[in-house]
Order: sequence, then C-alpha cells, then structure tokens
Amino acid sequence: MQDITRTLPVMTDVTIGLSASGMRREFDSMGEVEVPANRYWGAQTQRSLEHFSIGGDRMPKAVYHAYGIVKKAAALINAEAGRLPQWKADAIVRAADEAIAGQLDEHFPLFVWQTGSGTQSNMNMNEVLSNRAIQLLGGTPGSQQPVGPNDDVNMGQSSNDSFPTAMHIAAVTAIDARLVPELKQLAQTIERKAQAWMHVVKVGRTHLEDATPLSVGQEWSGWAAQLNACVAQIEAARAGLYELALGGTAVGTGLNAPPGFSRKVAAKIAELTGKPFVTAPNKFMAQGSLDAMVRASASLRGAAVALMKVANDMRWLASGPRCGLGELKLPANEPGSSIMPGKVNPTQCEAIVMIAIQVIGEDTAVAFAGSQGNFELNAMRPVIINNFLHCATILADGSEKFRKYSVEGTEIDPDRIAAHVSQTLMLVTALSPVIGYQNAAHIAEDAQATGSTLKEAALRSGKVTEAQYDAIIVPRNMIGEGLAGA
Amino acid sequence: MQDITRTLPVMTDVTIGLSASGMRREFDSMGEVEVPANRYWGAQTQRSLEHFSIGGDRMPKAVYHAYGIVKKAAALINAEAGRLPQWKADAIVRAADEAIAGQLDEHFPLFVWQTGSGTQSNMNMNEVLSNRAIQLLGGTPGSQQPVGPNDDVNMGQSSNDSFPTAMHIAAVTAIDARLVPELKQLAQTIERKAQAWMHVVKVGRTHLEDATPLSVGQEWSGWAAQLNACVAQIEAARAGLYELALGGTAVGTGLNAPPGFSRKVAAKIAELTGKPFVTAPNKFMAQGSLDAMVRASASLRGAAVALMKVANDMRWLASGPRCGLGELKLPANEPGSSIMPGKVNPTQCEAIVMIAIQVIGEDTAVAFAGSQGNFELNAMRPVIINNFLHCATILADGSEKFRKYSVEGTEIDPDRIAAHVSQTLMLVTALSPVIGYQNAAHIAEDAQATGSTLKEAALRSGKVTEAQYDAIIVPRNMIGEGLAGA
Amino acid sequence: MQDITRTLPVMTDVTIGLSASGMRREFDSMGEVEVPANRYWGAQTQRSLEHFSIGGDRMPKAVYHAYGIVKKAAALINAEAGRLPQWKADAIVRAADEAIAGQLDEHFPLFVWQTGSGTQSNMNMNEVLSNRAIQLLGGTPGSQQPVGPNDDVNMGQSSNDSFPTAMHIAAVTAIDARLVPELKQLAQTIERKAQAWMHVVKVGRTHLEDATPLSVGQEWSGWAAQLNACVAQIEAARAGLYELALGGTAVGTGLNAPPGFSRKVAAKIAELTGKPFVTAPNKFMAQGSLDAMVRASASLRGAAVALMKVANDMRWLASGPRCGLGELKLPANEPGSSIMPGKVNPTQCEAIVMIAIQVIGEDTAVAFAGSQGNFELNAMRPVIINNFLHCATILADGSEKFRKYSVEGTEIDPDRIAAHVSQTLMLVTALSPVIGYQNAAHIAEDAQATGSTLKEAALRSGKVTEAQYDAIIVPRNMIGEGLAGA
Amino acid sequence: MQDITRTLPVMTDVTIGLSASGMRREFDSMGEVEVPANRYWGAQTQRSLEHFSIGGDRMPKAVYHAYGIVKKAAALINAEAGRLPQWKADAIVRAADEAIAGQLDEHFPLFVWQTGSGTQSNMNMNEVLSNRAIQLLGGTPGSQQPVGPNDDVNMGQSSNDSFPTAMHIAAVTAIDARLVPELKQLAQTIERKAQAWMHVVKVGRTHLEDATPLSVGQEWSGWAAQLNACVAQIEAARAGLYELALGGTAVGTGLNAPPGFSRKVAAKIAELTGKPFVTAPNKFMAQGSLDAMVRASASLRGAAVALMKVANDMRWLASGPRCGLGELKLPANEPGSSIMPGKVNPTQCEAIVMIAIQVIGEDTAVAFAGSQGNFELNAMRPVIINNFLHCATILADGSEKFRKYSVEGTEIDPDRIAAHVSQTLMLVTALSPVIGYQNAAHIAEDAQATGSTLKEAALRSGKVTEAQYDAIIVPRNMIGEGLAGA
Repeated sequence: MQDITRTLPVMTDVTIGLSASGMRREFDSMGEVEVPANRYWGAQTQRSLEHFSIGGDRMPKAVYHAYGIVKKAAALINAEAGRLPQWKADAIVRAADEAIAGQLDEHFPLFVWQTGSGTQSNMNMNEVLSNRAIQLLGGTPGSQQPVGPNDDVNMGQSSNDSFPTAMHIAAVTAIDARLVPELKQLAQTIERKAQAWMHVVKVGRTHLEDATPLSVGQEWSGWAAQLNACVAQIEAARAGLYELALGGTAVGTGLNAPPGFSRKVAAKIAELTGKPFVTAPNKFMAQGSLDAMVRASASLRGAAVALMKVANDMRWLASGPRCGLGELKLPANEPGSSIMPGKVNPTQCEAIVMIAIQVIGEDTAVAFAGSQGNFELNAMRPVIINNFLHCATILADGSEKFRKYSVEGTEIDPDRIAAHVSQTLMLVTALSPVIGYQNAAHIAEDAQATGSTLKEAALRSGKVTEAQYDAIIVPRNMIGEGLAGA
Repeated sequence: MQDITRTLPVMTDVTIGLSASGMRREFDSMGEVEVPANRYWGAQTQRSLEHFSIGGDRMPKAVYHAYGIVKKAAALINAEAGRLPQWKADAIVRAADEAIAGQLDEHFPLFVWQTGSGTQSNMNMNEVLSNRAIQLLGGTPGSQQPVGPNDDVNMGQSSNDSFPTAMHIAAVTAIDARLVPELKQLAQTIERKAQAWMHVVKVGRTHLEDATPLSVGQEWSGWAAQLNACVAQIEAARAGLYELALGGTAVGTGLNAPPGFSRKVAAKIAELTGKPFVTAPNKFMAQGSLDAMVRASASLRGAAVALMKVANDMRWLASGPRCGLGELKLPANEPGSSIMPGKVNPTQCEAIVMIAIQVIGEDTAVAFAGSQGNFELNAMRPVIINNFLHCATILADGSEKFRKYSVEGTEIDPDRIAAHVSQTLMLVTALSPVIGYQNAAHIAEDAQATGSTLKEAALRSGKVTEAQYDAIIVPRNMIGEGLAGA
Repeated sequence: MQDITRTLPVMTDVTIGLSASGMRREFDSMGEVEVPANRYWGAQTQRSLEHFSIGGDRMPKAVYHAYGIVKKAAALINAEAGRLPQWKADAIVRAADEAIAGQLDEHFPLFVWQTGSGTQSNMNMNEVLSNRAIQLLGGTPGSQQPVGPNDDVNMGQSSNDSFPTAMHIAAVTAIDARLVPELKQLAQTIERKAQAWMHVVKVGRTHLEDATPLSVGQEWSGWAAQLNACVAQIEAARAGLYELALGGTAVGTGLNAPPGFSRKVAAKIAELTGKPFVTAPNKFMAQGSLDAMVRASASLRGAAVALMKVANDMRWLASGPRCGLGELKLPANEPGSSIMPGKVNPTQCEAIVMIAIQVIGEDTAVAFAGSQGNFELNAMRPVIINNFLHCATILADGSEKFRKYSVEGTEIDPDRIAAHVSQTLMLVTALSPVIGYQNAAHIAEDAQATGSTLKEAALRSGKVTEAQYDAIIVPRNMIGEGLAGA
Repeated sequence: MQDITRTLPVMTDVTIGLSASGMRREFDSMGEVEVPANRYWGAQTQRSLEHFSIGGDRMPKAVYHAYGIVKKAAALINAEAGRLPQWKADAIVRAADEAIAGQLDEHFPLFVWQTGSGTQSNMNMNEVLSNRAIQLLGGTPGSQQPVGPNDDVNMGQSSNDSFPTAMHIAAVTAIDARLVPELKQLAQTIERKAQAWMHVVKVGRTHLEDATPLSVGQEWSGWAAQLNACVAQIEAARAGLYELALGGTAVGTGLNAPPGFSRKVAAKIAELTGKPFVTAPNKFMAQGSLDAMVRASASLRGAAVALMKVANDMRWLASGPRCGLGELKLPANEPGSSIMPGKVNPTQCEAIVMIAIQVIGEDTAVAFAGSQGNFELNAMRPVIINNFLHCATILADGSEKFRKYSVEGTEIDPDRIAAHVSQTLMLVTALSPVIGYQNAAHIAEDAQATGSTLKEAALRSGKVTEAQYDAIIVPRNMIGEGLAGA
C-alpha cells in the first residue's frame, strides 16, 4: 500500500509509556478489540492474551529483545530499498532499539502456549513498535497510522521467517553471553584444582569398587576435559544457528520481499549483533524444520550429561563425613537438616543434578517438537525456544552457583585419601606383569578372605619376595605421567 | 527443649506484614545472617536465596499452601500430645492458616534448584511461621522466642517426611481442583458434540487413507472415551498420593516424633483437607522413593498422549479451508498470519499439542529423578514437584482454553463430509462378504486406476448387479449401531 | 462369499511342515508372488519380507501366539453364527492351536518395522493358517481353497481390530506369566532378608551423608515395599488391557462382522485364556488410540524406576571392599576385571540399572508413538508392542537373575555396620528435643571440627551430663518400632 | 609373567572350529568351569552366560569385530615393544583377523545385560583368541598356554580402556559403512525429484492450512537439505569418536602399559582401519565418561527428527486417494488392508516414523546412561553401544527401504496439485503490498464466507481492477527464484 503523506511526520523524543488509563480501541482484520490504554499492544495481542492464558509461562523476554533486532534490520533494509520511507524506518528503529534494550518488556505479555508459529508474539512486537512509532511521530495509538503493524513494521516479513530468526538470535545470545562463559569458568576452576592436586595419590574406583590408584588431579582433569568438550560441542552446534530464515516470508519463497532481501537483512543482523549470521541457503528447511534448534538443544543436553557426572562424583567423594567416602570436603553453606543438627549436605551438587535432569527432560520435548513439523512450517516453535532458553539459563546460573559455592571452596581430606590408598587391594595389579594375572588374583582374594593386608597375602603366596613387593607396590609410581595414559 | 514461661504470651490480632525497613539480623546454627526487615523469613531462607538464585523457577506457591496444612496439623497433634503448649500451637496454627490462604506468599521466595530434600523450603516455612507467630505473640522477629522454627514449628518433623507430605497434598489438590474438572468438562463437551453428530455419516480414515465410513459422532465419541479413561487413570494414580510420609522424620524411623504421631497427623490432614489421606504403611519407601509421584506423573502423561491425538485429529479434519480435509470448521479467534491476509489457523490445537509435548518431556524428567534416590532419601524432590504441578496446570488451563475457544465452537461442514463419503472407494468393503475379498479388491483397484466411480467399476466387473450394488452400498447402513462395534 | 462345496473336505492329521523345496506361487489382489515352498506364508508376507528387511528386529513370536487365540476365537464364533462352515472352522482352529503352541514360529518371519497397523503380521497369520488348514484338508497350498486367508481366516476381522487385540493378549500374558511372578519373587526375597536383619542397627544416610540410624531390615523393607507397589501398579494397568478391540473391524463400526460378534468373541477369548477379557465399550478409542498400552508401559517404567533405586542402593552399600561403604557383601559370581586381579564388581546391579534405563527409554518411545495416532487408527502398533514385550522380558529376566545371583546371596558385614553406627555424629538428633536444635547442632559441629567423638563434644558443651548422654544416645532405641514411623 | 619356552611353538594352518563334543574344563582365578567343547570361549564367558541370560539381546557382533582390531593392534605394538614374543603376537593377530572377519561370531554369545564395563565381552574375546591361538600353535584349549587370555591377549589393556575403544571403532564403522551412505543416497534421490519438479507450482501449507504457493521442487529441496544437514552433524559427531581410550588401562593412568603405548596403538588402529583414530588426550574423561557416544547418539537422533518430518509430509501429501490431500502418489507395494479391498497405505513412511520414534527413545536411554558414570568408569557401556548400533542400523536399513520402495517411485498428481493452487485463497497475499494487509484480509474473509472465488471477492471489494488482479495473482510468479527465498 502506498503511504501518501504530503508533509512528513516528525519524530519527537517522547518518553516511553502511555499515560492513559482505562481501555483503548484497537482493530485488526477481524474487528475492534479493547486493550489497556497504558499498553502499546494492539488487537491481536489482546486476543491472544484472552485465548491463551495458560499457566504462568510467558514467552521469554529474550525472544522479544532478539525480535527487536529483526525488526530494526528489516526496517533499515526496507528503507535502503526505498520500500519504506526513511522517516518511518527511523521511528521503527527507535522503537526497536527500545525493545532490544528491554525498555518495552512490560508490553510483551503473551504466553508460551499460543499459536505454534509464534505469530502472536510477532504481532505483539509489530503492534508495540507500531504504536510506539506512532507515538514518537505524534499520531494516535491504535490508528495504525502512519506506521502500521503489518504493512510497515512487518514489511517483507512473515512470522514464519522472522520468528525462527529471532529464535536463533536469542539462542546464540544466550550461549555467548552466559552459558559458554560460565561453563568455561567452571572448567577453569576445576582445572586449577586439578593442577593443585596433581600429585596427591588416591585410590581409583571403578564399578564403585576399589581400583588402582590415580592422582586427585588426574581425576579432576577428567571432569574439566568433559566440560571443555561440552563447550566445544555447544559452539559447534551454534554454527547451525547462524543461518537465518528471514527472507523466506510465508512459505520460504520470499513472496512480498524484494530480491536480495534475505542476504542483506542477514548481513545487517550480523552487523548489529557482531555475530556471523548469514542467510539460510534453503528457506524451506529453515522454516519447515527446527533442526538447528534440535541440534543446539542436544548440545545443552551434552552439558547436562557431563555436569551430572561431575556433580555426582563430587558429592559421593564428599559423602560422610564419617560413614562415607569422605575424600572431599565441600563448603558448608547452610545447615542441611531441619531435624538433624549439624548436618551438612552437598546441596549445590544436588541442584546441578536436578538441573541436569530437567535439561535432559526438556531436550526430549525439544526433539519431539522438532519432529512434528508439517509441510512449510514447524508449528512447535514456542515450546522449543522456551525450553532452549530455560535450559541455557539454568545451566549457566547453576554452573555459576556450583562453581562459586561448592567447587571453589572444595578441599581434600589428605588423611582419608592416604588411608584409602594404603588399604586398597588393587595395588596388586602392579604384580600382574611379574607373576601373572592368576597368581595376583589369588593374592588379592586371599587378602580379602582373611582380612589381611595385601603385603601379608602377597608374601604368604610365595610368589614375590618382600624386596620385590616393596619395589613394585609403590602407589606414587602407579599413576603414570600426565593425563593421556601410557 | 522445655519452654519455660511463667506468664503465657497472649496472641493479638496483628495484621500480616512487617513494616520495618532495612535489614534484620536472624541466626541459625551457623551464625547470623541479615535478612530484609520487611520479610518474615530467617537465616536459612536468606542463605538459600543467595546460594541458589538460579533462573526464574521459584518453588510453586502451591507447595507452601500445602506445607501450611502440614504445619497446622503437626502443631495440633503436638498440642494434643502435650508436647507443644496450646498457646504456641494456636499461634502456629493462625500463621499456618495464613500461609494456607496464600496470604504469606511473598515470604516464600526460594528457587526450585536448591537442596534436593526441600529442606530450604521447609525451613522457609518454619522461619516464616515462627516469626509470624512471634509477631502475633508480641515477641521480636528473629529471636526464635517464644516460637522457634526448628524446635516448635518443625516439632516432630523432618524435611524428609514433611516435604513429600506437602508434595502429595499439593499434587492431590492440583488434580482435584483443576485438572480433573477441566478434563471432565472437555470430555463432556466432546460427548455433547458426539451426540449431536451421531448420525452424520463421514468417511473413515486409517493410515491417513480413505477407509470405510463411520459417523462424526462415533469419531468424537472415541476422543471423549480417551479423555474419560485419562481421568480414571489420574484418579487411580491419585490413590498413591493419599499415603503420607509424615511421621517418619529423618530416615523413616520416626525418631523424635511420639508414638502414634504418623497416624494421628495423617488423620488430621484428612480432616483439614476433606480428602482420604492416610499414613504410609512403609516410611522407608515413602521417604527413600518418590514412586507415587512418578506414577502420578505418568497419569498426566497419559492425558497428554490422549490430548495430542484429539487435537491433532481436530486440526487435520479442519485443514484447508479449500486444499485440506475441511470436514470441521474451528472457531476463528484471531487472524492467523502476519503476512497472509484472511488466514485462520488451528491455534488452540497447536497450543494443546505443544503442551502435550512439554508434559511428556517433563514427565521424562520426573521418572529420571524418581530413579535417582539413594538410601533413606530421594533428594530430587523439588524438580519432581515443580514439574508435576507445572504439568497439571498447563494441562488444566490448556484443556479449558481448548474447550472454550475451539471445541465448543467447532462446526462440521456437511457438504464436504457428504462429498467425501460419496467419493471413497472403500465402500467396496461391504461387497467383500458377498463377492469375496479378491474380487472386491479388483473393483477398487480398477476404479482408482481409471478414475471411475466405485459403482461404475463394480458394474463393469460383472460381479454384482446394479440392484445388488444399490442394496449393499449404503453408507448409512455401514456404520453399525452405537459405539461398541459389531 | 458363499463357499460352495458338495462333498465336505475331511481334515487329516498331517504333520506340520511343507516338505517341498524351491519356490511356490502364491497370489493376492496385486498378483502372483513366489515364496519359499517349505513355508506356509503367502504373497503378502513375502512382499513384506522384501520391502521391510530392516535391522534384526522381528515381530515378537508372542504376538503370533496371541494372534492364534484371536483367530481361533473368531473361527469358533463365526462357526457358531453359521457364517463359517464347521469343517473350515475346525481346520482353522487346529492350525491356530499349533500357532498358539509356537509350533509354527518359523513361519512368522516379518520385521517390526512394517505397516503401522500390523496388517502384514495379520496377513502372515492369515496366510499361514490358511495354507496349514488347506494342507490339513488335503488342498493345495497357495490355492486359497478351500480356506482363504481373507475370506475365512480373517472373517469378520480387520487388522485394525485384531492386531490390538493380539497386542493386549500378548501383553497380559507377558505380565502374568513372567513379569509379575518375578517381581513378586524378588520382593519376597528382599522381604525375607529384611526380616532376618530387622534388628541390625545401621547408620542412615540422606543426601549421601550420615544420618540417624535405622535397621538394615527397615532399609530392605522399603525396597520390598517399592517393588510390591510396582506389582500393584502393573496389575492396575493390566485392567485396561482386558478391553479388546475385536469386533470393531476396519474403523470401529464393526462393518462385515455380525451383531454380537464383539461381545461373543471377547467372551471366547476370556474362556480360552482364563483371563477376564471383555469387549471394549468404545471401539473408536480402542482402534484410534493405544492409550491402554501407553498406560501399561508406564507401569513397567514404574518398576524400572524402583529397581534402579534398589540396585543402586545395593551396589553403593556394597562398595569397597575396603575404600567404600562396605556394609553389604554381594556374591562374587565372576572375576570382575581383565586387568585388576581379584576384583569383584556388582555386575548384577549394573545389569539391572542398565535394564531400567533401557525400559525408561523404550517407554518414552511408547508414549511418543501413542500420541501419533490419526483418526480411526493409531498406526504405530508394531513399535509399541515390540518395546512393551521387550521391556517386560528384560525386566522379568533381569529380576530373576538379580534375585538368584545377587540378592539371595547378599550378606551383611556386621562389623562395618556397627563401626559406622558408632561413628555417626547424627545420633545427636536424639538430644535435640532435650537441649534444643541449636545446641545440638553446635555439639555436632564441634565434634566434626575437632575430630572428637560425639560424646566428647556433647560433654564438652555442658548441655548434657554423661548420664543423660548415655541414657539418650542409644542407637537401638532410635529406630522406632516397625515400618510405619512414629 | 615371563613366558619360558625353549623351542618356540609353530603356528599351523588349522581350520576354524573345535570338533570336540561334550564339555571342556576351563579355569579362571575363581576356579574351574565347564564349557561346551566345541566353543572357543572360556570360564568367564561361561559364567556370564549362566548369570546373565536376560532376554534375547546379545552384544552386537560389530562390537567383537571392532574388538578384534583392538586386540590385533595391541598385539602388534606389544610385539614391537618386545613385551610379547613375536610368535605369540602372530598367533593372536591371526585369530584376531578371523574375529574381525566375523568368522568367530558364534563364539561370542554374551548378552547385552552384563557387567557395565563390558569386561565379560572383553574376556570372551580374550578367551576365544587365546584358545584359537593355542589351537593354531598346537596347544590344548583351556590350558591358557602358551597364550593366556589375561597375560597375553589382554596385555597392556583393561576392559576399561579397550571396551570403549571397540565401541568407538564399531560406531565409526557403522556410520561410515552404512548410515552416512544411505542417508546421502536418500538425500540425493530426493534432490533428483526436487530438480524434476522444480517448476511445478503447488499450494503451500502452514499450520496445515492453505498458504501461498511454492513449487513441488522447492518443498522437496527442503527435505533434502534437512537430510544433508543430518549427515554433516553425524560426521561432526564422528570426530569425537576418533579419540580412543586405549592406553589408559584400569583407571586412565596407563598402569601396566608401557610408555608410548597409547599413541602407538591408536596409530596402529588408524592404520588398520584407514580412519583417523588418535589417542584421547585425557584418559580420565575417556574412561570415566561416554560423552562422545552421547554426542554421536544425538546426531542419530537428529536424523530421526528430520526423517520423521520428511516421512510425515510424504504420507500426508499422499493421503487419499480421494478424500485426502492426494498430491503425491506413493508406490503401491502391497495390499494395505486385510478387510478393505484395494486399499493402499503409506507403509514405508510409517516404518520410518516408527524407526524415528524408536531412535528418539533409545537416544534418551543413551543420554541417561551417559549421565550415570561414577569416578573412573562409566559402567553403562553395553546399553549405550547396543542402542547406538541398533539405531544406526535401523536408520540405515530404513532409509534404504524408504528410498527404494517409496521415494524413488513416488509420483505427483499434477491435476490435483493444479486444482489446489486454483482454489487457495492465500494468493491474496500478493495483493497485500498493493492494497494493504487489512483490505486483502477482508477480501479473503469474504471469499471464504461466501464460498466465492478469490477473484470474485477481490473484484467485489472494489480495491483492485480485474486487470490488476490478473497481473498480480499469477501463482507461477509467486514462488520466487531458487531455494534461498527473496
């Protein structure tokens, strides 16, 4: 629709907010709707609010912050192409900047459980930016003049291409801003501990049973290596998120967007975010599937799986204080029991384990939803982005708290560790290359059956002399060199 | 500890709230902690807030409302037993009633990701009730006198038995108050539609392919039957939730609770709630596992599985309006597309499908968490109750919105339905008993290959006369009687 | 189709088997197909074999055994109704009896990954029974005379109603014949151990940390209670499986089956199996969903969740032998390590844990598949029944092996158990009602910080006298009475 | 143990097989065991067979083929290092080559549900190679002379490092040999179809509802793009599998393996397989976790998610033949119904959907198992490798059958496709930039309400002239250029 204005409207610096009270009339193609007069949103947002007030799950604000970038980039490219008057673009960009900065958050009230395309959140964004731009330009909120939600703010876009674009931007942002840094910090903290305890010999455990020794530092290095691998996987999965659907419009063909729009708008988003976003080479995949999100979610699950192992190991090694393994001492942050005085529990570890379980569960939902696309649209987007951002958040926050309040303050109990080393029968393994596996086995079995020490049993066997035993059974010589095995 | 007070404190009707500003000193066994002066919580709550601010997931308020019932019941039984002075019990009960009514909600700020036993939420409750009772009795908040959080409010209890008790009460409440009623209403609405359309003959579809006819009402009756079976399963699983751990205290033995406490306090909870709660016959199971919650969660999953089928069927039958199946017309609640004018989408169905997927994912987390108990405690409680209550809520709310905004207003398109019946080749099935399966198959294959009608192909085959055909191929005679098949 | 035979064929006692070699021509409505001459199957089985040779997963034989019951019952009812000549019914029944007994197993070669309705397995059954009956009646295999696979063996049936009927029969059989008996035996074995050790006091553990004492028997009683509850849940879910789809035929209406068929055939199946099968009251649910199977699968998952907890507890309590908890001694069934001589591992527990994880994973697939029905058919049947029967089998077999080779031979280490009791600081809990929680906490904290015994710290605190201490801190008095807590 | 032989044994070319009947005595450190005399396995295999006969799940043969490579590489490196006499190494290598070739498959009978480290399968391999080498060298099976299972075949190895090494080799082999090639072929087949139909205009569908047009080829290109992305993800995940644990021995330290063993044996495996295997830089991660397997499993899940979308789209587009969408015609491979003559169903699509669901379920089990490691060992290996190989197999086989028997033969129905394009109201979208979204919406709404054509409603609106309409509403101009949108 050609916008015909003789004198161009002028943007003035109106403070954010609508001071009116009561209700305001807004309209869409289906008719008029009353909305709260102090909110920027319009008819379609209001319809969604009424039809979809389900639970307390709101579309994450991060989606709208990312959507602001989409709308800003589109307005800039549309203006460049001469399709959108510059003064309209300026007003939309100003409003979008406010959305990006979170200043319009209270105007995005919609629920997660809505249309599967995210159209209602797109329209929420369109309506809010439209009315805010109208306000900046001196117009009347609800008039859709001179900046319309569909014709101007949504110009050259569909929810079908813009919503997954916002999903990708929001997901990458969550990964970069919080998740990867926190996982890295946790890994680094563990690595520092590993370095400090690299030569403290301890008993190994396999199948929960006493095994040959290793150092505390070696054990911790394995945990750090796991987390570093998780970071690498997340970063690899992130690559798929750099491909943006924007420019495919309704079904991937780009109808109603001008040639070159896809490429240009992706470049603009890359410029605005400082991240290497590009346009997706196949828009039918980009809109018909959410496979890149499924893969990214799998990388969060990878972190959950690793964190669960690390946290479980730590709490088991700290079990006791007197009737457990007791090799680690975790910080005592709070009384552990309402009834048992003096009890201290591995609560940070438990929180991480629960977070890991939650992430694994929500990732199952993401994969399921990812499989349920039909034809030109996967209409399961809100459930996917909500779970993804939630998982990224609890993993990041959980890792931070776990590091600060548990890992950093963890200490070892050298006496307990040494006592275990002195007790384990599995030192016998070092005799195996000399006297053979079967003979060595009989020594260990005899020691266990009789309750004697390994040395007693070994000498009793007649297979080794005391001198041999003392030369071979030296735990500190049994842990090899470094981290890569023999 | 004997409480020695010469003149008994008197409870006065102090309004809820602490008007102080700044910070207040509270203490626990680990020392002093500053808390906001206008909050009732104490040292342990504050410690948890600082150590566990992870994401935005707060322990559901419904848990605290249920916990209020636990604390009230315990105080009443402790007073009856002469272990707790009546005036203390009165103050605790008053405070607990306020908690039950939701009047203290803002004083329960803790996160889901905390200690796995829920101890921090139990202590939050103990501290709030303690300080509120102290206030009612004219004492000084933070003094733990004359009503202490551990010794009085938590008397005869542990988090280990009281938290799962609160979980069960909260879960049963969610089932009874919202979930079952909403599922029943949805089923009834579907049943009414089924009745209305019981004689409208339509084409059946199996494998997505045209099949023999049935009535619209028969099809809808199947959906209603599914939902009714879900309700039955939920109610069956609810029975397991009636068994309460309270009275097991720290590890299930009931240490520090007087003989008979279990039975009496369960009876009191039954009285207070009007629900048939009983004491769990084996407290070691009741505290060491959360199996009853896992089973209850599975019953929610059952509803999710059924709802997904129903919602999918409805949106497919409504697909079109011109290039799909088009047999149903769903209410048009909002414009469906930001770019495609006049588009209407099955958004309520999509919301239900996403909710179903979410419930299935969260139930996976519940089962996983349920498997991770150790010894005398399953320390995965917060993640389980949070998911359960969340699932119950979105299922209930989702069912309500789905019913109101989609199912109730759904209409059929009789012309389209009739056209399909007239076209389907699978009416040939009725010929099978007369001319044999193979002959009938050849007729259908011929019709499809040549694009002719079934009748044309049938007569061409020479296997039936026109009179036979007209007598046998009568769709309305092919749908049987009622709902139970032949 | 009326079968017109002047002289009735006579059934003779031909041994099972086709001695021919090479290939035989069979036909179906699409034409002729060559099948191995020594197999009873026909054209459709052969088509499926060629198109669906995917992996090594064959449709479980138990499905065919159950299907034999379906075919037998249908033939008997069809004969009673005068629709099927008695001599045909006799031959079908004879062949069906052989299928039920497993004597025709090698003639059922199809894969799990086939048509989602199970039609190919139904046709496999129809073809095998047809040819076997033809053989018994002196006819020519492949001629479909005088007993046709569709017109006679499948008379009054569809795959759509008969396959889920066979699924239910097979599932109930698996539950009754193996799963429930094995779970019960395991529970009973655990109960016997619980009885034997009911007065052996041990340290409790919550959050993996030392807690107040309980008896070994109490701990074991919790495991038994979990398993008994699992059995109850499985039996409750089994009730849903008693409802049979048979009689709904193609889409639930019962087309081509005579009135009363549903009820009569279900009664016949009940008679043949001795189990309370009934006809499903709503055939559209019974064929359009597999909700009863989803629920039954959830009950298997419940057992998996419980078994995982039990097996994990056992292997942790047995960890060591010298550097772990070491309270239990599991049977040493085999050398545990290829490199560490004398190592013994909790391998039966590990097998159970892996089985539990597998069941939880496969149950996820079942629920997912259960949600994917469309209209008059859930076409995800093979994946559901295969997972269900697999889970039931590995749970049953796993429970048996776990019981025989681990639980039955498990012993306690009384010295280790006693040592732990003497060390735990959590005995301090018993002082709490006397000196208050905070004082008690300070005693425990002091003991832990200084490495002194609880008694030393308690006396040092000045809060209790030695006489008081000795009277109160008596572990055997701290475990209450029985299993139900205080 | 030093092997002291004066005259070196000579290897002779003995045919594979032990012709003895009855039982043979074998021994291990626990004593003697009888094994079938015609099998190469020894005492520990036999113990496992008896204790773990659970269900029908056998450790996949592919694991043993890969294990053969491990044993061969270790023998060669041990011989190079002078630790293993060359003649022993030669015999082990010969036996290992036979295992690699699958010639010893019947001697590997063990079940999946066994020790979580895979030790029993390692010992099975050690015992079989030992006895086969003994046979080749003219010794007595069961004597463990001159080649012992532990001291020689397992030299410098533990199950803890060798089993995950075999897992990685087996997994990479499955990916390279079958899965990636099949997925690529499927993608290529779809791409060919996409090319062929790149200019056939069809109606788009979003939310199952009519949308703006695209070409059949564009739609198919999206499916191919999905599958190509899956291949890329699988190949990326494969990189993690190239890192091998071998050389870490019991707990990651490399005890009993000589310095340099890790690096050399990985290089040897790379040489033997022609794949870029390297030694894992951190053996404590490599043995304490199975994170690389979890990631690889996630990549299979990615393929499942994509395949499900593709197969669902195809079967929906082919639904009908007369009462569905009917735009595609799938090959009719078999009669679809036992009761409905002439029915043809999308059975290959259904098989793929079921396979996808199975993979998603088993991947859940893999992730769960991956989280359950403890300390120096994740003892959930058998369940992980079994599920991984199973999923890879059914995905590969399923993709092959789906391609051959469905995709390759799929045709379009041009008339139906054209009819849909002519009917869809969503062509109105092209008017939107000219007359505005709201006006366009009212035209579409009017057309739908009145049952008129879009053109009739558009002209009736007075917003466009007939000339304008005819110029703008040209479906073939609405599908853009190529695959990347505007």
